[in-house]
Amino acid sequence: MTAYLAKHAEQVRLAAERIGAHIRRTPVLVSDLDPDLRLKPECFQVTGSFKPRGAFNGVLSLMESGERPKGVIAVSSGNHAQAVALAAATVGLPALILIPEDANPAKVAATRALGAEVIQEGITFANRERRLREVMAERGYVLVHPFDDWDVIHGQGTVARELLDDEPGLEVIAASLGGGGLLAGTAISAKNHSATVKVVGVEPEAADDAYRTWKAGSIQTLAASPKTLADGVRTTAIGGRNFEVMFVNRLVDEVVTVSEDEIATAVQVAWSRLHLALEPTGALPLAAYLSGKLPKGRIGLILSGGNANLQTVATLLGTH
Amino acid sequence: MTAYLAKHAEQVRLAAERIGAHIRRTPVLVSDLDPDLRLKPECFQVTGSFKPRGAFNGVLSLMESGERPKGVIAVSSGNHAQAVALAAATVGLPALILIPEDANPAKVAATRALGAEVIQEGITFANRERRLREVMAERGYVLVHPFDDWDVIHGQGTVARELLDDEPGLEVIAASLGGGGLLAGTAISAKNHSATVKVVGVEPEAADDAYRTWKAGSIQTLAASPKTLADGVRTTAIGGRNFEVMFVNRLVDEVVTVSEDEIATAVQVAWSRLHLALEPTGALPLAAYLSGKLPKGRIGLILSGGNANLQTVATLLGTH
Repeated sequence: MTAYLAKHAEQVRLAAERIGAHIRRTPVLVSDLDPDLRLKPECFQVTGSFKPRGAFNGVLSLMESGERPKGVIAVSSGNHAQAVALAAATVGLPALILIPEDANPAKVAATRALGAEVIQEGITFANRERRLREVMAERGYVLVHPFDDWDVIHGQGTVARELLDDEPGLEVIAASLGGGGLLAGTAISAKNHSATVKVVGVEPEAADDAYRTWKAGSIQTLAASPKTLADGVRTTAIGGRNFEVMFVNRLVDEVVTVSEDEIATAVQVAWSRLHLALEPTGALPLAAYLSGKLPKGRIGLILSGGNANLQTVATLLGTH
Repeated sequence: MTAYLAKHAEQVRLAAERIGAHIRRTPVLVSDLDPDLRLKPECFQVTGSFKPRGAFNGVLSLMESGERPKGVIAVSSGNHAQAVALAAATVGLPALILIPEDANPAKVAATRALGAEVIQEGITFANRERRLREVMAERGYVLVHPFDDWDVIHGQGTVARELLDDEPGLEVIAASLGGGGLLAGTAISAKNHSATVKVVGVEPEAADDAYRTWKAGSIQTLAASPKTLADGVRTTAIGGRNFEVMFVNRLVDEVVTVSEDEIATAVQVAWSRLHLALEPTGALPLAAYLSGKLPKGRIGLILSGGNANLQTVATLLGTH
């Protein structure tokens, strides 16, 4: 094992200790689909996705680091927003979340219900990074980045750490891949557990920047936010730290892409046969499994969340 | 504790040992809905419902009892059919399942896929008991009754036994109530654990025979199979053994009924907030909880299964 891997794996261990009182240890499930398949359903995590693992690790690390921050800020239309809102409320810090104007109103309401201030006016997917820097300067709040942040990466690494603690014999672990927070953390925990376990990232064909990044050896960026059912992985490029862990240090073995049809089928299978109400992003690794794109062996699928748009899912199930 | 309770609790313990290698120990989940609520999601059980617990206990007990039976027979349009088919196939016995002609083709296919012979021709909900006796006489197969059978009751009792083993401090346990197999087993395990834990059965208003049975002190029968979203509890009366456990020996404290609207809301909440793809019958205890009909305290809900008709659920979710 390299010193690089050992250092980051130790940080994941510390993250697990730090966040343990605030997150749930999700179970490992076996299904009728395949006796060799193990499922880590993070839809049962606090707020319905894995995101609080990284958000709590980020916010609690900030609180340990000396001067108490004035507040925290995040830009997200989805699960990261609720995670940061919850983590900040838990430690008594103000949280400000920038959410694009066209976001799902239910997710905005959920974020507000957790005590966060939400700014939507004039926020678009395109201008949100600029608006973020402006508001940060105005308020003096500290950013909790959704993926390009060591504390967040180490927090997300606790999912695979738990999975491998429960199922030490896994030969393949697959996780969804957007900005690379979950996958980088997964890769650290998996390769620390065993050099031979294969780590696979799964992204939609329509958002194949990470696949192209893996092939090219440098960060590739999508021209625009992609249109995909998997609305949790609409970032246009992975982060620098994520790139470093995943591809410079080669802790990720492979990136595979899945079509929109394959994602839709995976959601249907999750709901009808696994009895898991996953959001499309949470079903990405299942889509890769069902379409035969994962390496063979004892496979663990990290199912990242369950905060689905019910209208979308109703349509998917109704046309099954 | 009475000798009656002690004797049946010992039979549940033996059932747990007997079936242990064939069923899954389902996890206990906590949700964002209420920190005092514990969920026992039997949708993750083999075949997607709790039914294999009783079916395996019945079939394995038959195999232990001396002469090897020629085969087993069951009448069911739903989860019991798949459970008996699986248990019989596991021990190498032929299984014959009578399924009414108007049953969901997906469930018929699932039962056949497990190796059972299915007879549908000329079987209706009304004539199925008579046809059953005819076919039993013809073939010499042994009946595995879905609820009015001690082995089945003891097998179903392993759900609450596991739940209380994991969560010994529960003050209330609620389970769905059709023929009374699950509820009688639950009551045995719960009252054996503690005399003070309250056991509540939940049935649809449209199928309130058990509620009226509880009030009247004698078995009440519905005039016809009721029309309800909860298609797993369409039996017209509870069984004699179930009546004896639940009401003669007073191991059940209360029966509550829920409306079709309350069941629909519970399915929506299960899918959207608990991220559990439950069938309507599996959501009955949640419906009672959400409508404030359960006693207060630390509550455990036994969520019996997840084999939903996807068209029904798509409609429920789409109109949310």
